[in-house]
Amino acid sequence: MHSAAQIGDAIADIDTPALILDRSAFERNGAALMASVSGLPIAVRPHAKSHKCPEIARRQIAAGAVGICCQKASEAQAFVEAGIQNILISNEVVGEKKIARLMAMAQRADLAVCVDHIENAQALNAAAIAAGIRLGVLIELEVGAQRCGIAPGGPALALAQAIGQMPGLRFLGLQAYHGPAQHLRTLLERRLATDQAISLTRDTRDLLARHGIVCNHVTGAGTGSFMLEACSAVYTEIQPGSYIFMDADYSRNDWHDSGMPIFEQSLFILTSVMSLRDPDHAVVDAGLKASSVDSGLPLVADLADVRFHKASDEHGVLQRGPNAEKMWLGQKIRLIPGHCDPTVNLYDELIVVHEGHVEAIWPILARGALC
Amino acid sequence: MHSAAQIGDAIADIDTPALILDRSAFERNGAALMASVSGLPIAVRPHAKSHKCPEIARRQIAAGAVGICCQKASEAQAFVEAGIQNILISNEVVGEKKIARLMAMAQRADLAVCVDHIENAQALNAAAIAAGIRLGVLIELEVGAQRCGIAPGGPALALAQAIGQMPGLRFLGLQAYHGPAQHLRTLLERRLATDQAISLTRDTRDLLARHGIVCNHVTGAGTGSFMLEACSAVYTEIQPGSYIFMDADYSRNDWHDSGMPIFEQSLFILTSVMSLRDPDHAVVDAGLKASSVDSGLPLVADLADVRFHKASDEHGVLQRGPNAEKMWLGQKIRLIPGHCDPTVNLYDELIVVHEGHVEAIWPILARGALC
Repeated sequence: MHSAAQIGDAIADIDTPALILDRSAFERNGAALMASVSGLPIAVRPHAKSHKCPEIARRQIAAGAVGICCQKASEAQAFVEAGIQNILISNEVVGEKKIARLMAMAQRADLAVCVDHIENAQALNAAAIAAGIRLGVLIELEVGAQRCGIAPGGPALALAQAIGQMPGLRFLGLQAYHGPAQHLRTLLERRLATDQAISLTRDTRDLLARHGIVCNHVTGAGTGSFMLEACSAVYTEIQPGSYIFMDADYSRNDWHDSGMPIFEQSLFILTSVMSLRDPDHAVVDAGLKASSVDSGLPLVADLADVRFHKASDEHGVLQRGPNAEKMWLGQKIRLIPGHCDPTVNLYDELIVVHEGHVEAIWPILARGALC
Repeated sequence: MHSAAQIGDAIADIDTPALILDRSAFERNGAALMASVSGLPIAVRPHAKSHKCPEIARRQIAAGAVGICCQKASEAQAFVEAGIQNILISNEVVGEKKIARLMAMAQRADLAVCVDHIENAQALNAAAIAAGIRLGVLIELEVGAQRCGIAPGGPALALAQAIGQMPGLRFLGLQAYHGPAQHLRTLLERRLATDQAISLTRDTRDLLARHGIVCNHVTGAGTGSFMLEACSAVYTEIQPGSYIFMDADYSRNDWHDSGMPIFEQSLFILTSVMSLRDPDHAVVDAGLKASSVDSGLPLVADLADVRFHKASDEHGVLQRGPNAEKMWLGQKIRLIPGHCDPTVNLYDELIVVHEGHVEAIWPILARGALC
């Protein structure tokens, strides 16, 4: 696959559409996260589902992260092959082929996985015994996201007790992540949802403790809420992912008085004006295949009073307001992705820019690692 | 990248999520398209932006297509490198790097491109002269889609006259595609929008003819409307893409009494139940990175009264109605993508199934070819 840029290119010479990363903003975001939790008894394990890029994982670990999270066995494999050693798959791995891949990886790396169902625990146990290993597992709790996870309290206890009887598994603790809470707009809403998740998790942890089961790890949290979990005295680890990039959806959150760092937008889609019927009707070369629109359309960076109005497969239509300057054919424009994670997954490379030029090209090696 | 299947695998053994193609339905769709226009004075040039797969392009050409359409220079390059010789880029190619790539390709293949702006025509002309070639161009008309294209009538005539003076370019005719018309739900709505596009195109063709400019090619049309253009006596060529696959969005069109073939769903996302808190709450392993939701959520195939309720990055939540059977952990379920083109662009391979088994794996070589 052809690369959209070469090292040393000016930004205006990058072929489009391309995914560009402002290296300074990216580094400030990383430093802000680590500073915000420094002194707190909390480990940082950034989620690599956002970037899918081993170079970023290496930098996160060098900055103090204990390892990374992945969401899929094949995603984890891309990181293991790139030399990342400490990975939590913060998700269930179900199915023979996936479990076989997991066991092969567990021979080479420090790997843990989540479970929320006794049948899955049994399958993992049997495969681990056959592979001659003891696989670390966390029980995922359903704490409000209405997605994966076993019900907190009694059901979680029963599963933990069953896992305690399985010689192929090593019980590590709890995974409790409230995804939708990250995107609630006001701090109060995020706090209410997160407090409920923390409370359910605390109660389950304590219930397990009363039955002699120790949770050494309690992990979860995302970019929208992580300070709440970090200060909870329940969680031992946070898993933010988007903080390195940010996106249009997170920009709609109110961060005022949240006590959380204000992360900067570091990730952009560079696009070109490819059609200009009149000064008010510009079409750019970034559409649905260049930017995921699941959480809304991209925003136009840099240009005042210009709106991304409509996306089709390969096109984006811009709308110019009365205070906008004229656009021109071939003009390069930066867009802020609507939702960073699925947008990154559309690209094979991150073009790292600094002071107006391409400084590096980082392969997105786990792009498309769906299985 | 690891493959989700091997030839000979039963469908239930394919790793998930995976993009699977029912070979029989795919072939019936191809045959139905060719039969529907047989006897009409119309060429078929399927749009490869839907499949991005040279193996499919080869089959389309073997079945009588004159060549393919692409939407991007890099997409066309993937097909040229795979041996496809006749390609229309049904879109504008703007920018130095893209034009350089176009010229390199035009040395090796029978290539044409659309223009809708004098500056772009001038840039193409200069590059073609420098490369020692004469590049075929079509003028794209804006016929209702409010996207690319020059205004029909006078502006198009002026551009055609200017192109006539450019020694590096060879004027071939008109491109006129009404994208949104394809997805209007009733035949009457599609007919009204398409009739307007046909009428604007006819008038412009005739205006050019009165000025001594012959349009040998008038091309456009998609899966929702192509019979109208094929019978118009204006268009010489149609460009349907989705007809080979179909999707949930096209399934909401009313095809009743349209005189058009009823295409079958041949493209599916195979997914697994990976979490099952209770019989009513199943989570599958296909989310936003496995299915584009720009035109709505996927539909659940095969299972009665089960609905795809919600997608997040890596998860889909299914909702079981009162008449649904119980689901089980690890159960493989076929989904119908909401929108085929951007969904195909998420995968590196099409897993071709026939009579319950994997028959072939076709690489999606132009996946991610955005530039």
